Amino acid sequence: MSRGILTVISGFSGAGKGTLMRRLTEDYDNYALSVSMTTRAPREGERDGIEYFFVDTETFQERVRQGRMLEYACYCGNYYGTPRDYVRDRLDQGRDVILEIEIQGALQVKKLVPDCLLLFVTPPCAGELRRRLEGRGTETPEVIARRLARAAEESEGIEAYDYIVVNDDLEACVRQIHSMVQNAHYTPARQETLIKEIRGELSGFSKGAE
Amino acid sequence: MSRGILTVISGFSGAGKGTLMRRLTEDYDNYALSVSMTTRAPREGERDGIEYFFVDTETFQERVRQGRMLEYACYCGNYYGTPRDYVRDRLDQGRDVILEIEIQGALQVKKLVPDCLLLFVTPPCAGELRRRLEGRGTETPEVIARRLARAAEESEGIEAYDYIVVNDDLEACVRQIHSMVQNAHYTPARQETLIKEIRGELSGFSKGAE
Repeated sequence: MSRGILTVISGFSGAGKGTLMRRLTEDYDNYALSVSMTTRAPREGERDGIEYFFVDTETFQERVRQGRMLEYACYCGNYYGTPRDYVRDRLDQGRDVILEIEIQGALQVKKLVPDCLLLFVTPPCAGELRRRLEGRGTETPEVIARRLARAAEESEGIEAYDYIVVNDDLEACVRQIHSMVQNAHYTPARQETLIKEIRGELSGFSKGAE
Repeated sequence: MSRGILTVISGFSGAGKGTLMRRLTEDYDNYALSVSMTTRAPREGERDGIEYFFVDTETFQERVRQGRMLEYACYCGNYYGTPRDYVRDRLDQGRDVILEIEIQGALQVKKLVPDCLLLFVTPPCAGELRRRLEGRGTETPEVIARRLARAAEESEGIEAYDYIVVNDDLEACVRQIHSMVQNAHYTPARQETLIKEIRGELSGFSKGAE
């Protein structure tokens, strides 16, 4: 069994990342979602190890120092991050792990896991992005301004991604992401065993023919 | 309409490259095959511009000097190569062009067209490769030795390829290659127009909100 692919999904708010991830895990059985770790208090009904791993600040910081977080960020006074062991265990089990994180986190992950796949999800055109950022017309100007600032910020990192996934047709988009992840299993680095085996066979064959 | 993807298919002899290429052009309408140029004499029934472009040695060498060949090689005293204009015209028309060439040629193409896709087709395991190289037991030891030498040589370049395509199930393999080529349209470099448009929209939007 080959090691899983780590896929990081980022993208504009409202681009449909959540739906895409849910559909990937529903339609195919090779995916595992990561569970984030946070220092914020659990909300009503949230279970440790399911929605999040809930830890105190000291524990979180200790993990960061030990290099046991794939990425992390501080948001509204709380830490959020991806536990490295959790992801590694699932990759070792052959699961393709999907993380949804924003660009700064994605670039942190790429440094630690160079063969991860970075996907950026975007609406099909700028007008559609505008409509999604504006929402249903019920958002306050502050909310829109915050979304806008975030989108402008995120668009700055697009070039570092492996693929821009245009979320126009949901079904096509799910299949496309799945094919991107599955194809990533066929890079030469991932097919090292087959290549070695073939080289061994050719060299043994060669000796036999001499 | 976006520019086509140039795909170079290489692989072990008997790996099924010819069948795969035929099936890609039959099953999907986005593909164009390249027509090679050669200095060897046309055989019975071969038509200029269909099977090959037939030219004399002087013309071929002049094209090489002018940088008008994507790659070329000399084989049994004759030149064979890929005319650059022919490929470029089809890419400009939005066709995804497929070339079948061996590894040395593939690496020449990669230098001139860095965003081309290099696919290496291989049988699913070393034993199967051995059976295919040995053929039906009717080949002379010289033929087998030549195939073997070629296979050993080709396996040396595998790491430079984008993907190793394991030709186990023909139908699955055709679909996989198609998805690799189609996904290549979604790299950030290929989605420059969309990215520019989105950045333009975000910056215009931002000014409007100020």
